[in-house]
Amino acid sequence: MTSFIRNAWYVAGWSRDFGTDLRALEITGQRLVMFRETGGTVRALEDRCPHRLLPLSKGKRIGDTIQCGYHGMTFDGRGTCVRVPGQDNTPKSAFVERFEVHERHGIVWAWMGDPDLADTDQIFDMPEFTDAGWHAHQGDALHIRSNYLNVAENLVDPAHVSFVHPTTLGSAASENVPVHVSTSGSVISAWRWIRDAAPVGFFQKFGGFSGHVDRWHYYHLHMPSTAVIDFGSIDVAEKCDEEDRNRGVRIFALHFVTPVREDYTIDHWMHLRNSALDDDAASAQMDAMFKVAFAEDKEILEAVHDAEQQPQRRRPIRIAIDKAPTVYRKRIRDRIAAEATDDLGDPGDSSFINHD
Amino acid sequence: MTSFIRNAWYVAGWSRDFGTDLRALEITGQRLVMFRETGGTVRALEDRCPHRLLPLSKGKRIGDTIQCGYHGMTFDGRGTCVRVPGQDNTPKSAFVERFEVHERHGIVWAWMGDPDLADTDQIFDMPEFTDAGWHAHQGDALHIRSNYLNVAENLVDPAHVSFVHPTTLGSAASENVPVHVSTSGSVISAWRWIRDAAPVGFFQKFGGFSGHVDRWHYYHLHMPSTAVIDFGSIDVAEKCDEEDRNRGVRIFALHFVTPVREDYTIDHWMHLRNSALDDDAASAQMDAMFKVAFAEDKEILEAVHDAEQQPQRRRPIRIAIDKAPTVYRKRIRDRIAAEATDDLGDPGDSSFINHD
Amino acid sequence: MTSFIRNAWYVAGWSRDFGTDLRALEITGQRLVMFRETGGTVRALEDRCPHRLLPLSKGKRIGDTIQCGYHGMTFDGRGTCVRVPGQDNTPKSAFVERFEVHERHGIVWAWMGDPDLADTDQIFDMPEFTDAGWHAHQGDALHIRSNYLNVAENLVDPAHVSFVHPTTLGSAASENVPVHVSTSGSVISAWRWIRDAAPVGFFQKFGGFSGHVDRWHYYHLHMPSTAVIDFGSIDVAEKCDEEDRNRGVRIFALHFVTPVREDYTIDHWMHLRNSALDDDAASAQMDAMFKVAFAEDKEILEAVHDAEQQPQRRRPIRIAIDKAPTVYRKRIRDRIAAEATDDLGDPGDSSFINHD
Repeated sequence: MTSFIRNAWYVAGWSRDFGTDLRALEITGQRLVMFRETGGTVRALEDRCPHRLLPLSKGKRIGDTIQCGYHGMTFDGRGTCVRVPGQDNTPKSAFVERFEVHERHGIVWAWMGDPDLADTDQIFDMPEFTDAGWHAHQGDALHIRSNYLNVAENLVDPAHVSFVHPTTLGSAASENVPVHVSTSGSVISAWRWIRDAAPVGFFQKFGGFSGHVDRWHYYHLHMPSTAVIDFGSIDVAEKCDEEDRNRGVRIFALHFVTPVREDYTIDHWMHLRNSALDDDAASAQMDAMFKVAFAEDKEILEAVHDAEQQPQRRRPIRIAIDKAPTVYRKRIRDRIAAEATDDLGDPGDSSFINHD
Repeated sequence: MTSFIRNAWYVAGWSRDFGTDLRALEITGQRLVMFRETGGTVRALEDRCPHRLLPLSKGKRIGDTIQCGYHGMTFDGRGTCVRVPGQDNTPKSAFVERFEVHERHGIVWAWMGDPDLADTDQIFDMPEFTDAGWHAHQGDALHIRSNYLNVAENLVDPAHVSFVHPTTLGSAASENVPVHVSTSGSVISAWRWIRDAAPVGFFQKFGGFSGHVDRWHYYHLHMPSTAVIDFGSIDVAEKCDEEDRNRGVRIFALHFVTPVREDYTIDHWMHLRNSALDDDAASAQMDAMFKVAFAEDKEILEAVHDAEQQPQRRRPIRIAIDKAPTVYRKRIRDRIAAEATDDLGDPGDSSFINHD
Repeated sequence: MTSFIRNAWYVAGWSRDFGTDLRALEITGQRLVMFRETGGTVRALEDRCPHRLLPLSKGKRIGDTIQCGYHGMTFDGRGTCVRVPGQDNTPKSAFVERFEVHERHGIVWAWMGDPDLADTDQIFDMPEFTDAGWHAHQGDALHIRSNYLNVAENLVDPAHVSFVHPTTLGSAASENVPVHVSTSGSVISAWRWIRDAAPVGFFQKFGGFSGHVDRWHYYHLHMPSTAVIDFGSIDVAEKCDEEDRNRGVRIFALHFVTPVREDYTIDHWMHLRNSALDDDAASAQMDAMFKVAFAEDKEILEAVHDAEQQPQRRRPIRIAIDKAPTVYRKRIRDRIAAEATDDLGDPGDSSFINHD
């Protein structure tokens, strides 16, 4: 059974990834060919010629069309067939599916479901992208041989930091600090403050803290799989209030988790920060630190995925720290169920069944 | 479900491939051990000792017999057990299946079905093999990770040449030239002439054409999977008639398409030509050109096979140029169905069911 | 269907393999994490955290406990959970399965079934381990991509030696010498003497024989998969009786065959000998000779396993030399059937069904 939500925006890549060449990708098990038209618009089509199924990404661009590399059938950026060599007509069935694409803040998003339902207002955004007090820096794309739910769940799970990242993002000081959880609309949040502790490795290097700090981790998971991790540190003498985090060194680490196949996920990661603006060396330093930490996650997440493929004689257990991941998995299951049935009636009318 | 026809001759290799050693091959999913007896006859046996299943190709030759490498059971070239170490009798069930083999024109053919039905008159032949005006040159064997039907279909499909081989065997000049199709007995033919066009890359190098030529492609597919591609060029000033092709530089490219497994095919290819007879340099030059072109086919055919393994939400479409491939696939399906049912009555009497 | 017997002792490794680190292994398809406690006891636990399934072998030792590498759940050497970070209680379901372990003569055994049935008296032993007239030398572990039944069967099969090891352990002189078979309790034995023949390669090198010898092979297979191969040579002039083998150069080659997965087996091999005691060079020389011979077995056993995965149109045949392997396979099948049903009543009372 699928673990994918189709009617959602997923990150296909950074704007810089899309040039004039044909780019083959896969999102939610759907193979795509993507390219940027001469006018600048990025297009996403089903990567399958309807004739002999050759991926269109094996063909070539002719202007703003793609010519199949086998028999030359040619499609425009909306998937309409504009040429069938050897005949004058182009039959109606000669098309490829198109997928809606939207580009914003240097990020290319694709809507994997019904194009008519695509609403660009639903695309993740935050005001700091365009705030002069903040600097946005695109990192890289982490490829993980694990289901995307493991990857996304990990991003609303502050408790793993002490054990997976003991020398980078966490430390033993946080092992037993309780996690708070709340939900707001389509966002699930988990957070904790570690007060009056030595700075973790990351903030020894970035921010230059040496004395005790207050530090925070806020994990906000936007359905279905975009994570915003608001974390930072401030000198303990500053007596920082929870809502006053901009006074400290504050970072938003963003993770755009893209399901590729059931066993493969790409995490495009970047960050925004309120210090060291336009400081390329700081960006490079942070990328390097993130790469160390994310390699730690990758090892765990791939081992968990592998373990999930084994026969299970006993059900896994859930513990106190799992509140946010549990809410997340339930919401995903509910949305998949809704997508699987929304053709059969009014999907919003769940009260009908309950009250009848 | 199988895509293989069992009662057919397939090329196992060139005569030069079969010496005194034991050679392991696979044809239509049947593992074979083949070897040449001291008298010169090539033998093909099931590559499986009936005792503990070790491939006999892991054993060793003792004269014209094969001794299994595990416990020494020994079989002659007809699959009869001649020795069971540790006992005096050789039980009736101690045999391996044999397959009929025939060698002609330096080519070794194996009949993969009922030995009693093997008829060497059915083996592909053409008079030019023994015509002093023609030179035959064996090329190589191309291994392709694709079902053999994709490979064979491609060899009765002139339309792909313009797009898959734009710089070698084809050019844009032929993109819209119509394809003619006919059938005659067990041969399906597709052809077209491109009149008064610049010579393609191949005939610039071989034949030395520089001015405009008339050129032709005749694709003859002999069931189940031998292709003869009659192609050539002639100076446009010669005003060559269709049936007068020997006046030009004419080549028969032969492809013996051998199904190995459902996802693996070997194409033994060679050619005959009516010029540059006994010119080894010309042979080498043509092999080199063919290798470039066939690598182009291989990339396409493997990508198509891979795409066929994906879930399909829509059926592939057929277009005007598909006439010959469509006839071919129907004939293959009909022969598979006939093989699957021919034990149940008179397979030729299909009218019985229709009229009763 | 499984080919594994759960209620049995299997060799997990040599004592030297188990230190303070966490060691991941797999036996009968069960993933294990093993480690040696500070007191010296070796422990084996299910290699799966009950929370998010991460293998505990990816975690770290904290004293004599293992802390999971994901969220820090911690287990002692009996699988009891001693800590769940983020909460005070440790729920009952928070445990991992433990497996009984016993260490003797430098060999670590694991019992893969019900711990309450583990009886260390059932572990294979022989008096020569502690006899000053004998030298025990641990060899290595051979990894074989084949089901363990193929590996074990091969170790109660003297007939293969002439064909698989013609230049090392066997020679053509033994090809037709009959094999004797007997059973005694849980041991199946097959043996033969080759009288008055040239020494085989092994005993030309070890023992220095050059004239004719009497040589013997006794294969004793202890259920489920421990083999003792008693083999040796003695000058033919000595007229050695069968029961007087200690007079010759005598070797016990031991094979501890551990089923890993259905398609993977590890054979820990060692030997005891009654000559060249404490002669390290002799041990090294024998290891080198064994490695050549066992590589010959490995090639055969992997090819047989591969052939078994093919569709079979005919059943394999059994021949005279198969007596011991046939008894062995039947006993394994009977024990698997007994394990599959022993919860449903008194497994010994098979007469009930027959007499009712």
